[in-house]
Amino acid sequence: MGGAGRRWPALLFFPMEVLRPEEMTLAVFGPGLLGGSLLLEARRLGFGRLRAWARREESVRELLSGGYADEASVSVAEVARGADLVVLCTPVEAMAGLAGEMVGVLSGSRVVVTDVGSVKGKVMEEVGPVLGAGGVSFVGSHPMAGSEKGGLGAARLGLYDGAACIVTPGGASEESVAVVRVFWERMGCEVTEMGAGEHDRTVARISHLPHVAAVVATLAALRGDPGAGRYAAGGLRDTTRVAGGDPAMWRGILLGNAEAVVPALRDLVAETTRLMEMVETGDGSGLESMLREAKALRRTRYPD
Amino acid sequence: MGGAGRRWPALLFFPMEVLRPEEMTLAVFGPGLLGGSLLLEARRLGFGRLRAWARREESVRELLSGGYADEASVSVAEVARGADLVVLCTPVEAMAGLAGEMVGVLSGSRVVVTDVGSVKGKVMEEVGPVLGAGGVSFVGSHPMAGSEKGGLGAARLGLYDGAACIVTPGGASEESVAVVRVFWERMGCEVTEMGAGEHDRTVARISHLPHVAAVVATLAALRGDPGAGRYAAGGLRDTTRVAGGDPAMWRGILLGNAEAVVPALRDLVAETTRLMEMVETGDGSGLESMLREAKALRRTRYPD
Repeated sequence: MGGAGRRWPALLFFPMEVLRPEEMTLAVFGPGLLGGSLLLEARRLGFGRLRAWARREESVRELLSGGYADEASVSVAEVARGADLVVLCTPVEAMAGLAGEMVGVLSGSRVVVTDVGSVKGKVMEEVGPVLGAGGVSFVGSHPMAGSEKGGLGAARLGLYDGAACIVTPGGASEESVAVVRVFWERMGCEVTEMGAGEHDRTVARISHLPHVAAVVATLAALRGDPGAGRYAAGGLRDTTRVAGGDPAMWRGILLGNAEAVVPALRDLVAETTRLMEMVETGDGSGLESMLREAKALRRTRYPD
Repeated sequence: MGGAGRRWPALLFFPMEVLRPEEMTLAVFGPGLLGGSLLLEARRLGFGRLRAWARREESVRELLSGGYADEASVSVAEVARGADLVVLCTPVEAMAGLAGEMVGVLSGSRVVVTDVGSVKGKVMEEVGPVLGAGGVSFVGSHPMAGSEKGGLGAARLGLYDGAACIVTPGGASEESVAVVRVFWERMGCEVTEMGAGEHDRTVARISHLPHVAAVVATLAALRGDPGAGRYAAGGLRDTTRVAGGDPAMWRGILLGNAEAVVPALRDLVAETTRLMEMVETGDGSGLESMLREAKALRRTRYPD
C-alpha cells in the first residue's frame, strides 16, 4: 500500500452536496487500539475536529494530553453533539446503550454513525433501530485490523493499511453507505459490502474459529506442564499467539456470534477427531492427504 | 544470544583424550533445512572436514557447488568412513536403513552418531540397536529449530541460535553424550537431557499438537469457501502458519509419535468441545475463565 492512494481527497462527494473533510467533526467512542488508531489517521488526513468519548476520566485525560483528540469527555451527549461522523469502538455489548444516549442530540442532523464491531448481526439488530427511531443513519463496519495487544497505548498509524473492511449497509441510504465506504478507504482499507448474516458466517470461520483454535491449543499443550513451554519453538508461539487477546472482548465476540461460531467449531471438532483417528489407526495416506489439503488451502491466501 | 558464547573452543575435551575440532570430520546425512544449516555453522566454527550425503545426485551437486560440504556423495559408506561425528538429518523413517548401511564402515572407530529427528522413542529403538550391533555409539538429539520452509535453499546461519535441544542418551557412554552436548551447545542450542519417552510426550504437546491445531483450523476455516481467506487478518495467518509444513514429513512425525500424540489430541478435542458448549449455552463466565486461563498459560512462555 503506497501512501499516495490514501490521501484524503480535497472534497468528499455526497450525492446531494459537497462536504470538506477539514470542516468535518469525527467523534470516536471508546478509543482503544482501533479507535485510537482511527484518531491518529484522521489527524494525518486533515479532519477538521477530532472528538473522543471514554468511560473513565483517566482515559479522557490521556486522550487530551496525548493529543489524540481536540475534545474529549465522559459525556456521550457532549461528544456526539454536532458530529458529522460517529464511530463506535467500544465492545459490542456497550454499543446499544451508547446509541440510546446519543440519539437525542444527533436527531435531525446529517450525521452518519458506524462502528468497528467484530459481529454485525447483533449490532445491526440492537444499534440500528435505536438510532433509526431518531432518524439517525447507522451503517455497520468491521475493519479486520487489530492485535492481541489492545489499548490506546498500542494505537498507531498504519494499523488499517491494507486491511479488509466489511461494510454492512442494513437499511441505510446510499449516501450514508458512501460516506462510510470513503471513510474506510481513506483509512487504508479495502472495502467490501455484504449482508450482516454473511459477514457473521464469514468471520466465524476466518477470525473467530482461529481464535478458538489458538485458545484450545494453548490449554491442551500447556495445562499439564506449563514448564514444557520452554522447549517450544516458533510453532507453538505462532499457533497460540491470538490466545493472548483480551478475554472479556473475546467472550463478547464469541457469544455475540454464537449462531455462526457453533457450526464452525463443530467442524473444528470433527476435523480434529478425524485426524486423531487416522493417527490412532496408522492411516498414513489419509493423514498425508489431510495435511496436503490444509497446506494447499492455506496457500490460496498466503502463497509463501 | 551473542556470538561470543558460541565460538568453538580451541579444544573439545573428551574424558579420555583431547581432540581438536579442526581435525574432526563431520558427516551430515540428508542436508535439507536442518542439515544444511548445520553444515553452515560447522564451517563457521572451523570444523576440519565437512561431508554430506544426499539421496539424489542433483542434491550432491548442489552441496558441492554451493560450498556446503568439502565432499558429498550418494554413497553412504563413502560419506561415513572415517567420520568423527555423524548427524542423521533425513526423515525419521529413513534413519534405520542408513544406520544399517553405515555400521560396517564405522565399526571399530571412535565415531559418535546422532540425529535431529522429531520423535525419539522410535529412533532410539530402531537406530540404536543397528549401530550398537557394530559397537557404534548412538545418542538421540532433537534441536527445536525449523520452519515451514524446508530444503537446503532455506538453510542459514543462526537457525539454531537460542533453540532448545533435547538430547536422549539411551544407553550411550558419558563420553559420547558429552560430545553430542558440546556439539549442540556450539551450534547455539540450550541443551537438556531426558529419556526418549519423556521427550516424546513433551513434544507431542508443545510441537505436534500445535501443528495439528493449525492444520484442522485451516481445514475448518477455509474448506467451505477458500475465497473468504481474503478478509482474514493476522489471526488466521499466524494460527495456521505451520500448516504450511511438509505433509510427508509431518505424516512421519505424527505416526512415529502416535502413542503420545493421540492423548494430546484427545485433550484438544475435549477442550474444543467444552468451549463450543459454553458458546452454545451462553455460559459467559465459564467461557471467559477458559479464555483467561489460556492467556495466562501462554504468558508463562511468551511474556509479551
